Amino acid sequence: MRIEADSMGSMVIPEEVYYGIQSLRARSNFNMTGRPLHPVFITNLARIKRAAALTNFEAGLLTKEQAFSIMKVCEEIAAGSFREQFIVDAIQGGAGTSANMNANEVIANRAIELLGGSKGNYSVIHPNDHVNMAQSTNDVIPSAGKMTVTELLKAAVAELKKLCQALNQKSSEFDNILKIGRTQLQDAVPMRLGQSFGAYLSAIKRDVRRLTLAGEEMLNLNLGGTAIGSGINVSSYYYSNIIPNLNKLFNYEYKQAGDMFDATQNLDGFVQVSGCLKSCAVNLSKICNDLRLLSSGPRTGLGEINLPPLQNGSSIMPGKVNPVIPEVVNQAAFQIIGNDAAITWAGAAGQLELNAFEPVLFYNLFESLDLLRQASQALTSLCITGITANKDRCQSLLEKSVCVATALCPVIGYEKSAAVAKTALREGTTVKEIIHRENILPEEETERLLNLFPMTTRV
Amino acid sequence: MRIEADSMGSMVIPEEVYYGIQSLRARSNFNMTGRPLHPVFITNLARIKRAAALTNFEAGLLTKEQAFSIMKVCEEIAAGSFREQFIVDAIQGGAGTSANMNANEVIANRAIELLGGSKGNYSVIHPNDHVNMAQSTNDVIPSAGKMTVTELLKAAVAELKKLCQALNQKSSEFDNILKIGRTQLQDAVPMRLGQSFGAYLSAIKRDVRRLTLAGEEMLNLNLGGTAIGSGINVSSYYYSNIIPNLNKLFNYEYKQAGDMFDATQNLDGFVQVSGCLKSCAVNLSKICNDLRLLSSGPRTGLGEINLPPLQNGSSIMPGKVNPVIPEVVNQAAFQIIGNDAAITWAGAAGQLELNAFEPVLFYNLFESLDLLRQASQALTSLCITGITANKDRCQSLLEKSVCVATALCPVIGYEKSAAVAKTALREGTTVKEIIHRENILPEEETERLLNLFPMTTRV
Amino acid sequence: MRIEADSMGSMVIPEEVYYGIQSLRARSNFNMTGRPLHPVFITNLARIKRAAALTNFEAGLLTKEQAFSIMKVCEEIAAGSFREQFIVDAIQGGAGTSANMNANEVIANRAIELLGGSKGNYSVIHPNDHVNMAQSTNDVIPSAGKMTVTELLKAAVAELKKLCQALNQKSSEFDNILKIGRTQLQDAVPMRLGQSFGAYLSAIKRDVRRLTLAGEEMLNLNLGGTAIGSGINVSSYYYSNIIPNLNKLFNYEYKQAGDMFDATQNLDGFVQVSGCLKSCAVNLSKICNDLRLLSSGPRTGLGEINLPPLQNGSSIMPGKVNPVIPEVVNQAAFQIIGNDAAITWAGAAGQLELNAFEPVLFYNLFESLDLLRQASQALTSLCITGITANKDRCQSLLEKSVCVATALCPVIGYEKSAAVAKTALREGTTVKEIIHRENILPEEETERLLNLFPMTTRV
Amino acid sequence: MRIEADSMGSMVIPEEVYYGIQSLRARSNFNMTGRPLHPVFITNLARIKRAAALTNFEAGLLTKEQAFSIMKVCEEIAAGSFREQFIVDAIQGGAGTSANMNANEVIANRAIELLGGSKGNYSVIHPNDHVNMAQSTNDVIPSAGKMTVTELLKAAVAELKKLCQALNQKSSEFDNILKIGRTQLQDAVPMRLGQSFGAYLSAIKRDVRRLTLAGEEMLNLNLGGTAIGSGINVSSYYYSNIIPNLNKLFNYEYKQAGDMFDATQNLDGFVQVSGCLKSCAVNLSKICNDLRLLSSGPRTGLGEINLPPLQNGSSIMPGKVNPVIPEVVNQAAFQIIGNDAAITWAGAAGQLELNAFEPVLFYNLFESLDLLRQASQALTSLCITGITANKDRCQSLLEKSVCVATALCPVIGYEKSAAVAKTALREGTTVKEIIHRENILPEEETERLLNLFPMTTRV
Repeated sequence: MRIEADSMGSMVIPEEVYYGIQSLRARSNFNMTGRPLHPVFITNLARIKRAAALTNFEAGLLTKEQAFSIMKVCEEIAAGSFREQFIVDAIQGGAGTSANMNANEVIANRAIELLGGSKGNYSVIHPNDHVNMAQSTNDVIPSAGKMTVTELLKAAVAELKKLCQALNQKSSEFDNILKIGRTQLQDAVPMRLGQSFGAYLSAIKRDVRRLTLAGEEMLNLNLGGTAIGSGINVSSYYYSNIIPNLNKLFNYEYKQAGDMFDATQNLDGFVQVSGCLKSCAVNLSKICNDLRLLSSGPRTGLGEINLPPLQNGSSIMPGKVNPVIPEVVNQAAFQIIGNDAAITWAGAAGQLELNAFEPVLFYNLFESLDLLRQASQALTSLCITGITANKDRCQSLLEKSVCVATALCPVIGYEKSAAVAKTALREGTTVKEIIHRENILPEEETERLLNLFPMTTRV
Repeated sequence: MRIEADSMGSMVIPEEVYYGIQSLRARSNFNMTGRPLHPVFITNLARIKRAAALTNFEAGLLTKEQAFSIMKVCEEIAAGSFREQFIVDAIQGGAGTSANMNANEVIANRAIELLGGSKGNYSVIHPNDHVNMAQSTNDVIPSAGKMTVTELLKAAVAELKKLCQALNQKSSEFDNILKIGRTQLQDAVPMRLGQSFGAYLSAIKRDVRRLTLAGEEMLNLNLGGTAIGSGINVSSYYYSNIIPNLNKLFNYEYKQAGDMFDATQNLDGFVQVSGCLKSCAVNLSKICNDLRLLSSGPRTGLGEINLPPLQNGSSIMPGKVNPVIPEVVNQAAFQIIGNDAAITWAGAAGQLELNAFEPVLFYNLFESLDLLRQASQALTSLCITGITANKDRCQSLLEKSVCVATALCPVIGYEKSAAVAKTALREGTTVKEIIHRENILPEEETERLLNLFPMTTRV
Repeated sequence: MRIEADSMGSMVIPEEVYYGIQSLRARSNFNMTGRPLHPVFITNLARIKRAAALTNFEAGLLTKEQAFSIMKVCEEIAAGSFREQFIVDAIQGGAGTSANMNANEVIANRAIELLGGSKGNYSVIHPNDHVNMAQSTNDVIPSAGKMTVTELLKAAVAELKKLCQALNQKSSEFDNILKIGRTQLQDAVPMRLGQSFGAYLSAIKRDVRRLTLAGEEMLNLNLGGTAIGSGINVSSYYYSNIIPNLNKLFNYEYKQAGDMFDATQNLDGFVQVSGCLKSCAVNLSKICNDLRLLSSGPRTGLGEINLPPLQNGSSIMPGKVNPVIPEVVNQAAFQIIGNDAAITWAGAAGQLELNAFEPVLFYNLFESLDLLRQASQALTSLCITGITANKDRCQSLLEKSVCVATALCPVIGYEKSAAVAKTALREGTTVKEIIHRENILPEEETERLLNLFPMTTRV
Repeated sequence: MRIEADSMGSMVIPEEVYYGIQSLRARSNFNMTGRPLHPVFITNLARIKRAAALTNFEAGLLTKEQAFSIMKVCEEIAAGSFREQFIVDAIQGGAGTSANMNANEVIANRAIELLGGSKGNYSVIHPNDHVNMAQSTNDVIPSAGKMTVTELLKAAVAELKKLCQALNQKSSEFDNILKIGRTQLQDAVPMRLGQSFGAYLSAIKRDVRRLTLAGEEMLNLNLGGTAIGSGINVSSYYYSNIIPNLNKLFNYEYKQAGDMFDATQNLDGFVQVSGCLKSCAVNLSKICNDLRLLSSGPRTGLGEINLPPLQNGSSIMPGKVNPVIPEVVNQAAFQIIGNDAAITWAGAAGQLELNAFEPVLFYNLFESLDLLRQASQALTSLCITGITANKDRCQSLLEKSVCVATALCPVIGYEKSAAVAKTALREGTTVKEIIHRENILPEEETERLLNLFPMTTRV
């Protein structure tokens, strides 16, 4: 056991742990979700601390010993070590101060250990004075947040691109399958099944573009701005070199924000990323609703396509196979939309020089990004790629419909066409039959007008 | 033209108008939605002002002439006169002060006129000192809001009850129509169409109950509390008698809030009403989605029911009839849900002794209530009551399905039942056929097990 | 290793695990949140399975050996054992089928083990035929969900009640501290600090009432309804006795739903609970905003109260102590509101006889309930109970203000009062001074009118 | 009176009106909001119809007489005539069919009139066959929607740019006013008031950029795609020339969508615009919250700035002036956020080849755009430009605080600085005093370290 003290008093801390008094206080203060900080966020905290130590060393403000031991620990953490030492809850008061201090304490104590000191002997390496040198929660936390979003977004977009490939493949594969197009769930006019998948593809491609654009907003960091953006307590060297050093160390492309006060207090960039995720969720949800509808049945639904069966669908109904992947993607979409609501509340809650509500914003945004990645991956590999078409069913439904009446309008007019369609429906026969019976058009023109394939495209 | 002055300066005002300088300032300051105050809200402002004048008269603080002229004007306004004199935008800054002052000025000037004075001569009847006597925006506006919600809610619930009657009628009418039940849009087990409508009925009945309960929260008014709930500037007589007088005049059942500070600063009661409207929107939306799905077709959808045709469905596709009422009710539901989001933001934005964001809250809540009334009315009279069933279609889909395999489980087990179902599906035949062919069960037991009607109920 | 097969094929399963092929398939299909089912939900699944086994035994459909081994395992699970065997993701496709089958498989294999059999030998105890006997995912999962909400809600409400006690205590403690009341963040009229806390108390008491009422909706279970509410494959005995048995075993008060179709397909009861949680979040957020505002400073803010200091507030600014508990409660409120959005989407997404989106709904609702409990607990014990008042600061701000001008209105009128207030503000002096200087009222009446305490209350 | 008939029957129509039977049916079917179509949307319908008539004439499918009369009417409508003839509710079922048919009927009847015919004699000009030629609701309505968003967005962005100018001006004007920076509402470190306004400026500039980018998505129209995007019933000439003609007529820059099926069924572009509006609302709300906080008082708040007084703030408290413009802008922000929720629901509700829920989406999106324009305009002209600073108050608060303790950290360390700050706070004295008394640093270094201006900037 060791004893640590801060300006509020002292606490007994188990000897083996690397976190310190401030982490402990935070853990007992914030018992909210029971979930830890996101692992990629911890990695990025370590990366920032490493670049900071290097920069402070270069500025002559840390000794080589101090700086290199700190940097060494940061590498260890980024590589996955000491994760259990990050004990603060993902949702915490204080704008992330506890997360930052947890990192500072773990790094300090492990660095002290590397230097042969005893944990808690902060005269060797001090969590605030050395590890946190030239930093504030208020520049470290939003910057680590942006770096985390950048990384998770990249991974999610990569999966969306794979989804695009799969949709593109299905669009080609189903290009010659004629089917009924439906508007407002009512029989409308002919189309091809490939066009359905083409439309899905087009929508997701927009999402890729939007998310990529929104991601660019994440590249402006406020490192060097410290408490409110003014850069108080930061050396000129650090102010100019912290981000270049970060970029050099990790092959990044971050820039210092043009307005550091703004970058410290405003979280709208995160809200914007989430808004784009919401747009993507809208598209994914619509696609999955369609897939579930088109594959409904097998006997009493639309039954135009088959989703790959993945598991038994019911604990009571034998033989039932359900559209579980679209269903879970729908749910991921709902979650992303719900998370966006929480993110918007947090994003708007900033006051004056800071928004203290980053923890809950990150909690939601990181989850949304992870969910988008997982959902896209599942949709591509466990659903889209295995979809097959029921060509005969598509054909027979199309032929049963009276949808071709639309094609008569330019020749016989809307009102007469409507009469033909209604008669066919009422009598349970076909449009062609009525035209023939009532001698509305010459046989040949009827054939030409009611040729289905040309109705499906202009190109 | 007349000239009015306030502590900020003076303005020229057309002679014929009843509003005054403060209304004019507000109109030029707040040009947001272009929409006026809700008419029922104006009526309720007038009712409060009438009760206040009476009470102040009884307390000896207004002369008979003053009080009775004010009361007379309030009756005129409540009856629908002078509505064009309410010129302030529905969304305004200042917690509704402008709405309150608009009422005060119109009432004062009209009362002056009735007493033979010239508009603007506020020594006769002063908007603040006489019309607004013993009142503050901060007790008048929330109270008028609650009274308006009470009235609109009552009307909406009455329509929901009519919807219940219509659903109940259909539930009976369709009680003997066997059909397939679908879970996750996949063929499941047999049921009766009446049971579908019965489930809709049960859901809406819950909404009626919830909304009625939430409405009870609206009965606590903070009249008498004035600026912050402390009742500053209010006579003891007024404090005790304003709500009893209001009740006597209009046959109401309002009570003075137990905690007047709370009732002045907190709008969570409105948020709660809106939350219940949201629950109702969820149910209406689900029902309308179902109706659109069950009536999809006419040839290539489920086609189990027919919605009454109301208008041509397409400007290009002749003969197309769309489920326009469910579609518009779905949209009302989306609007109510969106309004709830705005209401929640406004409800949470109060600070210290007041929530200044009532105008936007009311704007949304009154719209939600009006929409619920209109949507329920339309759904009942233009859709539900005219729905017919396609009994043959229901029967044929049911028979085509392999859903009866479930009924075999208790006898032959889940795994064997699954095999039978899959074989039937693969071969395009029926469950009965497979059982017969493979000699799985004696004919008689098969008949008993696969008897459809008993599968649909336990009672 | 053992091999298990289902109608889709076979898989190799580690010998030591209790879950089976369907759980495994689900785990590989649904890799969404990385989070397990909520522990209380698992407990409730076990409780239902136990009551079902008992009931099926009493109905003569399970042997004593089968039933008692199943019941034994359910007790073990409810007591906390085998939790690591529940391997399916909290968000999953298929309406919870995978969660249900995971429970069925774990129970079956452990029961087989207890009976001396080998895991996977389902002829002894079959996950579907025996453990799941007379059940469907579609009645088990919503029922377990309602039971979980009931339990978590009870715990949350208990914490809210403690919050009420703490607020009540502070309301009394601060009852004699005069302070300025502020509306729209502008100086308004006098009040007492205890009244602020009284208003918070009144708001939270409403939440307790609303949540309790909404919780009553959770008491109607659809156990016995199986797939769609029709009770297919359920014995009459089971149908009538499953819920009474559940109540007997665990001292519950559940009832069978009046409309089992409705109770199977509609999730609006959960939406309603969440809506009430949202109302509560609105109140908590408002209170926490106020606490942060009133304690702002220490030198340049309002500084009327002090929150108990809990941890260092800044990694860079020494001596800074932040309002971390209100901040984290604000965040919990944002999360609850965001979760409500996801819940509403899921609640409205049901189709026909089922809502397949329960998993994401539960994921959010259980989190909201846990968060409310934790947030209330923290707010009570780490914040409210330790709040102290800066009586002198309250007094001096009050005296500096010109708020008492309001009290002059009834005597000298609104316009003259306004002039006095504006003069005092402009000249940097007090209202009393101006009245005296301009000889507006006799000294004695001024004293009487400007006596602060009576301005704060009518009772 | 005249009689019109459609396939559902006939109706009596007042002779003087230009709308016809389908508009009438729609009006009686949809009685939802009581609000008409947005005027800019009507204008854009007329513009599309005009370009369509021209194109059909060029294609040889309309006679010169038909085309030119239609075009003439469209010009009249676009110029503001016949607006009262648009009688359908803004929220309607049927994907906007009623709005489209209302336009078709008004145009047809007025064109018939211009050609000397009698209204209702559709053999002259038929609403469907001539006015709607080569069009469908499903391409006309989304295209008119995008054109409307483009126009309203442009106007809103223009106001945001003026807001930027005003913020920029204030940022310069207040550049030399030292003040306390606050994080988490607690005293933090020094800054300049100009930096506050600079941060607001930076945020709004991002909104301008985002909205401009999102607006580009509106440039892809699906005109020519008709019912589902396949271009059924459209001549090749029309398909290629409708958008070029529209651009030529009105100096636009629209393009035909690359994937017409996608452009017909997906509304995510509108959701994206709304998402960006939401981001902007977050920024506006934060700014307005700050303005209200910084101007709180006049005596008992922060009081660092003064907002221009616009109207009396209270009907009861004389002399009170409230921050009504920030308050109304906050409300506009809440409304925009709420509208975004409704838009998201509508955007995700599309099924298969169409999203029938455009009316409610447009209702909300157009309102959001109008509100953003109005709110920005009011904020700029009625608030920002008139803000003045209380330089002395800023200075005195800054000097009272112990915030300069942060500047000591690099020299005396975090722990010692914290002790100094706490001592100063406890004793009610200054940091400088403690340093001097305890002889912590030489006078000169203290002076250098505690020099305020350099603490506010790095550049």
